[in-house]
Amino acid sequence: MSLQIDTSFEKLLGHLRSVERIGAAVSLASWDQETYMPAAGGPMRSEVIGDLVGILHERETSEVLGDLISEAESVVGDEEESPLFALTREARRDFERARRVPVDLAEEMARTSSEALQCWKGAREKDDYSSFAPVLTRVIELKKRIAEAIAGDDCSAVAYDTLMDEYEPGMTTEVMQGLVDTVRPDLVALVAEMAPRSAQVDARFISAGYPSDLQLAFGKEVVGAMGFDFERGRLDLTTHPFCSEMGTSSDVRITTRVDEADFTSNLFSIIHEAGHGLYEQGLDPQWAGTPLGSSVSLGIHESQSRLWENNIARSAPFWKHWLPRMRSLFPVQLDGVEEGQFMRAVNRVIPSLIRVEADEVTYSLHVMLRFELEQGIFSGEIGVGDLPGLWREKMGEYLGVVPETDAEGVLQDIHWSMGAFGYFPTYFLGNLYSAQIEVAAREAIPDLDQRLGDGEMLTLREWLEEKVHRPGRRWPAQELCRRVSGDDLDPGVYLGYLRRKYDSLYPGS
Amino acid sequence: MSLQIDTSFEKLLGHLRSVERIGAAVSLASWDQETYMPAAGGPMRSEVIGDLVGILHERETSEVLGDLISEAESVVGDEEESPLFALTREARRDFERARRVPVDLAEEMARTSSEALQCWKGAREKDDYSSFAPVLTRVIELKKRIAEAIAGDDCSAVAYDTLMDEYEPGMTTEVMQGLVDTVRPDLVALVAEMAPRSAQVDARFISAGYPSDLQLAFGKEVVGAMGFDFERGRLDLTTHPFCSEMGTSSDVRITTRVDEADFTSNLFSIIHEAGHGLYEQGLDPQWAGTPLGSSVSLGIHESQSRLWENNIARSAPFWKHWLPRMRSLFPVQLDGVEEGQFMRAVNRVIPSLIRVEADEVTYSLHVMLRFELEQGIFSGEIGVGDLPGLWREKMGEYLGVVPETDAEGVLQDIHWSMGAFGYFPTYFLGNLYSAQIEVAAREAIPDLDQRLGDGEMLTLREWLEEKVHRPGRRWPAQELCRRVSGDDLDPGVYLGYLRRKYDSLYPGS
Repeated sequence: MSLQIDTSFEKLLGHLRSVERIGAAVSLASWDQETYMPAAGGPMRSEVIGDLVGILHERETSEVLGDLISEAESVVGDEEESPLFALTREARRDFERARRVPVDLAEEMARTSSEALQCWKGAREKDDYSSFAPVLTRVIELKKRIAEAIAGDDCSAVAYDTLMDEYEPGMTTEVMQGLVDTVRPDLVALVAEMAPRSAQVDARFISAGYPSDLQLAFGKEVVGAMGFDFERGRLDLTTHPFCSEMGTSSDVRITTRVDEADFTSNLFSIIHEAGHGLYEQGLDPQWAGTPLGSSVSLGIHESQSRLWENNIARSAPFWKHWLPRMRSLFPVQLDGVEEGQFMRAVNRVIPSLIRVEADEVTYSLHVMLRFELEQGIFSGEIGVGDLPGLWREKMGEYLGVVPETDAEGVLQDIHWSMGAFGYFPTYFLGNLYSAQIEVAAREAIPDLDQRLGDGEMLTLREWLEEKVHRPGRRWPAQELCRRVSGDDLDPGVYLGYLRRKYDSLYPGS
Repeated sequence: MSLQIDTSFEKLLGHLRSVERIGAAVSLASWDQETYMPAAGGPMRSEVIGDLVGILHERETSEVLGDLISEAESVVGDEEESPLFALTREARRDFERARRVPVDLAEEMARTSSEALQCWKGAREKDDYSSFAPVLTRVIELKKRIAEAIAGDDCSAVAYDTLMDEYEPGMTTEVMQGLVDTVRPDLVALVAEMAPRSAQVDARFISAGYPSDLQLAFGKEVVGAMGFDFERGRLDLTTHPFCSEMGTSSDVRITTRVDEADFTSNLFSIIHEAGHGLYEQGLDPQWAGTPLGSSVSLGIHESQSRLWENNIARSAPFWKHWLPRMRSLFPVQLDGVEEGQFMRAVNRVIPSLIRVEADEVTYSLHVMLRFELEQGIFSGEIGVGDLPGLWREKMGEYLGVVPETDAEGVLQDIHWSMGAFGYFPTYFLGNLYSAQIEVAAREAIPDLDQRLGDGEMLTLREWLEEKVHRPGRRWPAQELCRRVSGDDLDPGVYLGYLRRKYDSLYPGS
């Protein structure tokens, strides 16, 4: 079979792209809801999105699509090296996952999670876990049924594996637990060692009052230099920053927030989201709207945002170029702040209660806690009533801080109310992947630090585009990792990165 | 039958609202395209909108909907006073218009007008009518076939009537021609009389340089005082201002443009669009997504924008309040400009070539010219090749100015390339309706000028909401006019309004 796309593939591509078009409409409706929509438009918008998601589901699960995939499979055979083989494999995967969930179960899940979301908001506000527990129990019950439906005849399937597989194809509880067990003790030790040293840093300049418009201008300048293409994208304000694309790598939108009393909130969120944005803008336009033109996993996606946010934008070479520029915009606020102090201040290790405010080192511990609770829930070892207590216990064990309220504990995240179990681990995986990808990038670009110090980031972006972004879903995440770094995922690389970085930032006395 | 909505109506309302949801998605995709979308996202956006429009058409023409309407008709019988009677009548009207056009004809029209739009842009740029003529011929041919399809068995139907009926239900060529014949001579005479007097006005202050942000702030303040609810709407920038709603009166979006060298461009376009926006925000939320919660005709819609833009915001009482406020924002630019001079400057009568730049008096003449050409095209009296010459001829006759190029003549408007024949007359009707509605408002609110002079515009907005907005499509436009003003549409009212206003502004020497 040649790479020439024959009629049966053309039809398959056409159908996949018809799914993507509706996805793009949903994406726009959601983006608008979080950026510009007047709040009063909310009820109608929910109905519009609900309707579009229904149409999306119909197209994703249509018999026509199933037939087209079968036909493609017979044409492509076992030519594993062909992109069309990968395309067909991934189309089959999406189709089976979507089709195996009965419509009434999917609808009940949608209704219940919508109810749970409202209920969670109220419960968090009133710090009342007991009012959330009943609907959370129902959400979990439905997710178990969904996992069973997807597993189908495979009686040996582990429910939590099936759920993680939605966000990180191929990931298993066993592998994940192994990674956690390897990394956690070292992280706990690193936190214990570095937190007291961080506390010595004078970081008052961070809250010295940075005008919003100047912050945004500076952030745009930085991500522009990273190669985020504003001709094919936008930056807007929102409450909880995110990145989304409108069905094409030519319309990728990042969002941010601004806090005049903490410049790091805006700057690092812009850079983080631009990392996601570069991935979306770097996908191969010839495969737009198909699995080969889509991101491979949330772990790899997060590796791109974390790489830029932490490995690059919290590194000394980066600030060698950008601190003088920032100083020219904020001369009073940064008066007398030297590079070393600046670096230590934006890299403080502070055990805290809230995940989304956590630093680079403590972040993964927040995520591990959630992973362990989630897998216990789905293995049946942990009940909904156990969660608040276990939360406090593990926070004390991993981070040495214990929330006084459930609002600051088990109720802090939106994910469970939406039924997004299995999502958290991808944040941790992103950290692991980012370290390994950075090492590979440094091998390919030996003078990377010199370039960063000159403000030149496009070489790195181009390398990432070629190695990580362009392949889309050509290979599974684990295989992509091997192809990029020459190795399986190795948590030791991440630990080595952190140890070197923090030993250098905060040397022992 | 009671007003209690029984099951069959519930189902009908449910289906109509499912049409509205897709309409809202189209509306958002179009709004975004004209405001925030990166240009590179254009090709994908066209595909998304095309797909959504296809889904919309399916739902509008589904047999299920036809059955639900038939059932509703049998329940509602001839109870003409019931809102459900009107709802059913209008649902039937929409269904028939949509259903009678065969899918392949609708698709061919969509493809051809998309091609024609591109072709028109190029032709206008190069001032080359001959490159546009062939595709315009095809557009017209398709519109004739569409008109025939909609007319069905009615052999006496006039094609142009059927086309106007889409935008102004019930309007006929005969009635329209009568209105034009009545109004045109007086308008031509008024222009001839007032244009030389306008030319004496010192209007240099209009282009004295008005910073964009201050212009926008002032515009927002004015339309806020008109009652445009920013909790249920937005204002954004675009190239060609428009108003749209996202399927609900709780999310109505107006757009505007800013020209620092001409403050009237921004100010009067904001007020104009806010007039449209107030209509959308004033629709009855209990009938949202049904004909009773929709605007009745483009003529009535335009009457609302024109009423606010011209009858109110170009009147002396309005500026009694707002000129001091504007002067406080722009003290240098308005230094020494007195109220009389200001009023004369923003009400100059200047025969010009371009419709969208025309003043209140000349505007209708531009529209009449287009009406006469359009109806000649569809009666077969005028060929595509005749249009440029006839355009120049009529411009000379009506306005005393003749375009040197087709770009400034027959190629200036987008409408024909989109197949929107029969649309232009609604601009003229809007002017006529606005005058009659103003008279009725003044009877109901005898101290309106006093209120306007105090900056109090909410009483007028409330009256308009009750009389014009809330009814939606309860009664046809002509009947609404009678209910609001006590009279049939009477062009004499409009002529009287203009004569009084301009005699007072520019008294003869």
